[in-house]
Amino acid sequence: MQSDTRRRILDTTADLFRRHGYTGTGLKQIVAAANAPFGSIYHFFPGGKQELGEEVIRRSGRMYQELVEAVWSQGDDLVDGVRAVFDGAAEVLRATGYVDACPIATVALEVASSNDTLRRATADVFESWVTAAAERLRAGGVPSRRARPLAIAVIQLLEGGFMLSRAAQDTEAMDAAGAAAIELVAAAVRRGKLPAAR
Amino acid sequence: MQSDTRRRILDTTADLFRRHGYTGTGLKQIVAAANAPFGSIYHFFPGGKQELGEEVIRRSGRMYQELVEAVWSQGDDLVDGVRAVFDGAAEVLRATGYVDACPIATVALEVASSNDTLRRATADVFESWVTAAAERLRAGGVPSRRARPLAIAVIQLLEGGFMLSRAAQDTEAMDAAGAAAIELVAAAVRRGKLPAAR
Repeated sequence: MQSDTRRRILDTTADLFRRHGYTGTGLKQIVAAANAPFGSIYHFFPGGKQELGEEVIRRSGRMYQELVEAVWSQGDDLVDGVRAVFDGAAEVLRATGYVDACPIATVALEVASSNDTLRRATADVFESWVTAAAERLRAGGVPSRRARPLAIAVIQLLEGGFMLSRAAQDTEAMDAAGAAAIELVAAAVRRGKLPAAR
Repeated sequence: MQSDTRRRILDTTADLFRRHGYTGTGLKQIVAAANAPFGSIYHFFPGGKQELGEEVIRRSGRMYQELVEAVWSQGDDLVDGVRAVFDGAAEVLRATGYVDACPIATVALEVASSNDTLRRATADVFESWVTAAAERLRAGGVPSRRARPLAIAVIQLLEGGFMLSRAAQDTEAMDAAGAAAIELVAAAVRRGKLPAAR
């Protein structure tokens, strides 16, 4: 029962962060939307909004990574997988009225210069995404030392795609991001097949 | 004298948006930092925070575009220009302790699903950047119909570079963004030189 309330608070806060950011989300708003007593936040998160915020960032980061990896795995090969991720992101944007996007991007920019604990949490999430994507790229044939910078670029294109597509309420930007990511990954795989690149 | 105060309010607000976002910036904080009487905000911006916010977004967008175009023009050719933009962004991040970045990105994500007037302002700014970058790419030899999606991807890599580099307080991500942008632009220029692509 208690852990149900805790999970409801975490889910609700993640949703509110995604829509309104960290600063724009108040504790009263969270308990109202989570249908939880106000004291329950401090019961589960004695450090208040910052402790709750840190857990939401790390948990949302893990959940989003699992989601993206599941979509990526649908592809027959690396390029197909990357295409599935960007097509899926565009589809979710359209289906949710351009609301549902990266769960930590807004918070990451808000806290980058104002809250070092939360900044570190967002940095850890991005790092875990980069590590996982680089591993996947390596397994798909991208030469080892190219895999990490390429993984970073693919994640940056996805984040930039969310930013520009949400602003324009149009998936043109996400489509352009996907095309660029596919071009970069395909070129890296081709280079991985050349004898000189081994 | 009045226009001095107005300009000080705009400059200060732009700086606060960059560091704390729209929601995290209060009117009292603005007048204190701008050394202006509280009433001056409503004198110059009768619509209050939203009217001020819209003007800051559009003005910061124009100023940042001029800055980026000046840096881009330092390059001897298209690839050199793109390199100068990303190297410059990495240098500014290092020099400012990872504070100074895109002036509208944080606000764009904050308002995307909560304030349609400000969302449109951020969309207009991104669109003007895309149009200007696409024109520059075309002039540098990128085939016409490739120029727009490529311009979008380059801007998305820059935005993603700011996001990941600020979170990690490290320019590795901006460097990876620059390398990816250079690879995409160089490939587009090469294809523009092939007879079949004309």
